[in-house]
Amino acid sequence: MRIITLAFVLLLITCEMSFSQKNPATEKRIQQLIKKMTLKEKVGMLHGNSKFYTSDIKRLGIPEWALSDGPHGVRAEMNRDNWQYAGWTKDSSTCFPPGTAMAASWNVELAKQRGFVLGEEARYRKKDVLLGPGINIIRSPLCGRNFEYLSEDPYLISQLSVNYIKALQSKDVAACVKHFVANNQEENRFVIDVNMSERALREIYLPGFKSSIIEGGALTVMGAYNKFRGEFCTENEYLGRTLLRNEFNFKGVYISDWDAVHSTEKAALAGLDLEMGTDKVNYNEWYFADPLIKAVKEGRVKESLVDEKVANILRIMIKTKVLDSKNREIGSINTKEHQQVAYRSAVEAIVLLKNEKELLPLKMNTLKSIAIIGDNATRKHCSGGFSSEIKALYEVTPLQAITGKYGKSIQINYAQGYEKQSHVAERSSTGQLNSDYVDWKLIGEAVEQAKKSDVAIVFAGLNHDFDSESFDRLHMHLPYGQETLIQEVTKANPKTIVVIIAGSPLELSGIAQRVPALVWAWYGGMEAGNAVVDVLSGKEFPSGKLPFTIPVSLNQSPAHALGNYPGHDLKVNYEEDILVGYRWFDTKRIEPQYPFGYGLSYTTFDITNAATDKKEYNKQEEVLVTLQIRNTGNLAGAEVIQLYSSQPICSVLRPKKELKAFQKVFLQPGEQKTIKLKVKVEDLAFYDEKESSWKIEPGEFVFHVATSAKDIKSSLSVIIK
Amino acid sequence: MRIITLAFVLLLITCEMSFSQKNPATEKRIQQLIKKMTLKEKVGMLHGNSKFYTSDIKRLGIPEWALSDGPHGVRAEMNRDNWQYAGWTKDSSTCFPPGTAMAASWNVELAKQRGFVLGEEARYRKKDVLLGPGINIIRSPLCGRNFEYLSEDPYLISQLSVNYIKALQSKDVAACVKHFVANNQEENRFVIDVNMSERALREIYLPGFKSSIIEGGALTVMGAYNKFRGEFCTENEYLGRTLLRNEFNFKGVYISDWDAVHSTEKAALAGLDLEMGTDKVNYNEWYFADPLIKAVKEGRVKESLVDEKVANILRIMIKTKVLDSKNREIGSINTKEHQQVAYRSAVEAIVLLKNEKELLPLKMNTLKSIAIIGDNATRKHCSGGFSSEIKALYEVTPLQAITGKYGKSIQINYAQGYEKQSHVAERSSTGQLNSDYVDWKLIGEAVEQAKKSDVAIVFAGLNHDFDSESFDRLHMHLPYGQETLIQEVTKANPKTIVVIIAGSPLELSGIAQRVPALVWAWYGGMEAGNAVVDVLSGKEFPSGKLPFTIPVSLNQSPAHALGNYPGHDLKVNYEEDILVGYRWFDTKRIEPQYPFGYGLSYTTFDITNAATDKKEYNKQEEVLVTLQIRNTGNLAGAEVIQLYSSQPICSVLRPKKELKAFQKVFLQPGEQKTIKLKVKVEDLAFYDEKESSWKIEPGEFVFHVATSAKDIKSSLSVIIK
Repeated sequence: MRIITLAFVLLLITCEMSFSQKNPATEKRIQQLIKKMTLKEKVGMLHGNSKFYTSDIKRLGIPEWALSDGPHGVRAEMNRDNWQYAGWTKDSSTCFPPGTAMAASWNVELAKQRGFVLGEEARYRKKDVLLGPGINIIRSPLCGRNFEYLSEDPYLISQLSVNYIKALQSKDVAACVKHFVANNQEENRFVIDVNMSERALREIYLPGFKSSIIEGGALTVMGAYNKFRGEFCTENEYLGRTLLRNEFNFKGVYISDWDAVHSTEKAALAGLDLEMGTDKVNYNEWYFADPLIKAVKEGRVKESLVDEKVANILRIMIKTKVLDSKNREIGSINTKEHQQVAYRSAVEAIVLLKNEKELLPLKMNTLKSIAIIGDNATRKHCSGGFSSEIKALYEVTPLQAITGKYGKSIQINYAQGYEKQSHVAERSSTGQLNSDYVDWKLIGEAVEQAKKSDVAIVFAGLNHDFDSESFDRLHMHLPYGQETLIQEVTKANPKTIVVIIAGSPLELSGIAQRVPALVWAWYGGMEAGNAVVDVLSGKEFPSGKLPFTIPVSLNQSPAHALGNYPGHDLKVNYEEDILVGYRWFDTKRIEPQYPFGYGLSYTTFDITNAATDKKEYNKQEEVLVTLQIRNTGNLAGAEVIQLYSSQPICSVLRPKKELKAFQKVFLQPGEQKTIKLKVKVEDLAFYDEKESSWKIEPGEFVFHVATSAKDIKSSLSVIIK
Repeated sequence: MRIITLAFVLLLITCEMSFSQKNPATEKRIQQLIKKMTLKEKVGMLHGNSKFYTSDIKRLGIPEWALSDGPHGVRAEMNRDNWQYAGWTKDSSTCFPPGTAMAASWNVELAKQRGFVLGEEARYRKKDVLLGPGINIIRSPLCGRNFEYLSEDPYLISQLSVNYIKALQSKDVAACVKHFVANNQEENRFVIDVNMSERALREIYLPGFKSSIIEGGALTVMGAYNKFRGEFCTENEYLGRTLLRNEFNFKGVYISDWDAVHSTEKAALAGLDLEMGTDKVNYNEWYFADPLIKAVKEGRVKESLVDEKVANILRIMIKTKVLDSKNREIGSINTKEHQQVAYRSAVEAIVLLKNEKELLPLKMNTLKSIAIIGDNATRKHCSGGFSSEIKALYEVTPLQAITGKYGKSIQINYAQGYEKQSHVAERSSTGQLNSDYVDWKLIGEAVEQAKKSDVAIVFAGLNHDFDSESFDRLHMHLPYGQETLIQEVTKANPKTIVVIIAGSPLELSGIAQRVPALVWAWYGGMEAGNAVVDVLSGKEFPSGKLPFTIPVSLNQSPAHALGNYPGHDLKVNYEEDILVGYRWFDTKRIEPQYPFGYGLSYTTFDITNAATDKKEYNKQEEVLVTLQIRNTGNLAGAEVIQLYSSQPICSVLRPKKELKAFQKVFLQPGEQKTIKLKVKVEDLAFYDEKESSWKIEPGEFVFHVATSAKDIKSSLSVIIK
């Protein structure tokens, strides 16, 4: 294993597997506290008293509750009463690569390490709740928030999210899994009414939340902005009561997204505990403030309901030692170890998409000159993306990294290549896309640099004018004439490597044919430049796998093919149903540009002797798949073994393949390992809408041992009785 | 065979196989005439004296030479001195489906019949030269003139063009094969400088011209607007002398495209004979008018060069009996037979792309109502496209046809669905694409009609605001929000059939997934509506095959992937070289939406017993491939057997497959035929740039018997010694 073994990795995670059992002593303490509170004090705990805090009750030793964005770093301090930064000098923090990059690493250990770091930094900053992870399904390539989310696959999401949450919460900070539920587009996010089948909800959109709560023990959940089946998520009894409280036995705090509450009584009854971010200057006018007191006084809301919500909050406060701060984790910030985890997270996320004639890794000791081209070679991304933006302690750009590491021995020839256009113009009322502008002057300069260099590296892709909360992209193209830039640079220097910096699928068919080497490096956080340069140079190796399908064209994607994005009349119907992502491409036999789970290595692997431990299983058993994997090349590398299941014959449509297990395996040249993957038979079930339950139809199931959704190495048939 | 056997089909084509031998008596007559001419009279024959005529020499019995557009019908009469129509009442004519539709029929007999009809109608209109066929290679999906051209494959082009030309010219009308050469885009067509390898020229861009001249005996050739390797085609000695005159032994007339001449001396020396369409009001100021006389007088151009050009024209005039009008074909126009050929041409062009659950053919006797949706259900296209526009005697739209044929028994519910936007706005300086506008009001009306109908048929696609001479398209999408229209109609009525009316590739991945039945009907000429309705109803069957690859996205196409469209600094380099169309997709293993040669049937076929007559051949021999094909379904149908060659091992890159023969076979249910396909071994050669000659490297060749470039039924390996 090349993973750095940090001190805190050795800590055993002691967090309960599920936060579903109430502790009698705690419950008694909660009730005693509540008894001492006035209604006004209680209600003060149920709504913000500023942008990110709720009111304290000093006389009872209850402090303000401190919430903070965000999922890949602790956000800098905001002013209490407006959306400006407070201007602190000590609120810089460690910035991780965002969600898609975490998912691309397919490394649950790294998700865990990230959780530890975020927990420590949140505590250092005196935060009680860190608003993340964001785990919504990546449904459309256009969703502006894809970069924050993880994947199109609920199993991959669950594995990462559970580990992230457990580790974060082990540091006495509550995770806030978000956005519950079906917040899969930013377009009309405040009003869009999402409709889907119960089966799609159960099989695709819910599992991440369910496992985050039940397995990960997530202490808080954030209700989404959108409507679900006609009602706002924050007012939706099916979501807040039936699913969260009853089915998932969730005892934590159900928090609204900021400004997602639209009613007092309805939201209160539906199970929402905490109102945050409402756009009213006077906090007492918020729905869960004076109007809630009034509702109680008029008998529309029982005070016991208020008590229930306060209890939920107190329960989490106790759980995370907010009320017992002596024993609480004090945290640390910006340590070398934290930065090292950020670095590993960036390295392991990098996906090698194409590598003709072993152009990569670059032979740095033989190169005299390298052209570094592209606005993304110098652009810092940590501070963008809206609520997830981070004031990183530092951010190393690719140009800085390569200059720092090789500038003395290799001539670095930089050209900007393309220019970021005004984002405002991009979305101007004329519909004109300024971002399609091709700047031939900049291209000419880049071509000059490429011509006189041994190799050229174009840092292309998007930035947080595209990958951002609050709006979706308009198209899936590379903006700013980058397609033309890359073509011209490659004409000038056939040894051109393109590095994509982006958090959402892009149309790649042109450049994938044009260039000999193509690397997807995501937004890499504060260590972005170091990570990508070390992978290009071979100091590290690429080991990421795509956490989403990259379609050839937008209209290959199910939501777009079927005309169910962004919806019409503020309604969207998820007609593709369970066939999201690779489930659609596989089942409909559509050839994407790059499949889910895809990623090359600098070395080669042989996978042999794949077998199941038995040929027949009953429904209570577990299937054990073993296999040998061997590094058959000359360099170290890692492969992600993916195990997909399929049921060829079933009374309902089943996706052609569904991910059921995976493992990232690190191997030195010549090294061989035996890998064991386990799947519970019950996890092979589908959700039967007629019987409102999970169901397995006995018969043949096939397990595919694969290195992507398209690269099947072995198929194993078993019988489920 | 379901092809109508028209009287004139029985005529044997008596036109010489190649117009490369001079007839001594004719040459004597030519020289006698020239001797009698003044220089001014000679020069009068070498340039237009109006938009479409050259000067007569009455005293020598030489009439004005009458040229006319266009390739799929005889264009209405223009004013002599401006681009307005003359306003005649008797110049309506038969209008065929344009070039891509001709190619989609893969029926050389139909190409021949078209030639006969055009010849007869041209003669009836007293025309001497009909400006067509346009046979440029379809290189980019965006080229505005693709609809006029035939294919991305030089062999398919050649077969159709040769038959068309022979038949046309048998009616004493000269064909004018155009545009020589490499006029593959309309963007910057007046100035673009096209560069390509000699091999690409020889293997891809030239074969259609070469066979049109050598096999088809084309009597005139039109020089293209663009530059070729730095010089205008009309001034390019390599094209006009080396290739046309020397290699192809062309004895006919080399005519400029209208306004494509830029010089006197240079063009004259390069072999151009006739200057047409120059944008100068005073005809005497044209390059081949007074300036040519001046050049002769100043000794810059020899008078013998003028004589050569006059001789070329007189030779064609004699050949087509212009000087012997007593015996000349008098022609006929708008006969039932002509219209029947137009109908057959439209029917056989129709390509069935998708047909789920045998939705097609429609069971008309069980249907109570049909929704007919789309602007293209009522739009007439014959009169559009610029120079190829036709004043058709009539044009039957799909709505007219279905109402006429079924309106009494079936309720026809029409809705426009989308609206053609101003084309001017489409290309406005803001860059805004009005054509992307989604009109939800029209969609709502269409949805209403679809809901209340048993089936819905959407007539979608383009029109001649997109498929038109003089500009290229900006994108490959369906305009006017049709994608959304189709999605919404299909949601309202799952039994939705989409019929695409267009002459160039479109992005189809969305609707191909969305709708159960997809039909490509091209621009269908005057019988468009009848043809498509008869195919949908099963009165006729679909038998067309795609003459070009339909990519998933524009950037899959080689020119676009490599950044060689539309060029830069008015230069374009065909860097994809010989890998045009399916040669690229096949060789690079890129999965298109629909491959070249693709098309379904209402029935099924079995192809068996494919075999070559021998296992080894020498270079002078011919390979004979025989096979059996059987209609295994319950309906009549036709299959186009395609024979592709490949050479797995060769010292130069060879495309993975190249079309070498094809045959369209009509079969009744249960009927079986034995098919023989012949390929000369010499036609397996590649162009060797080092030796400047065609070359066959001995070794293994494989012949693929296929029904599209992707559907190989049998692969036969042979040895070439």
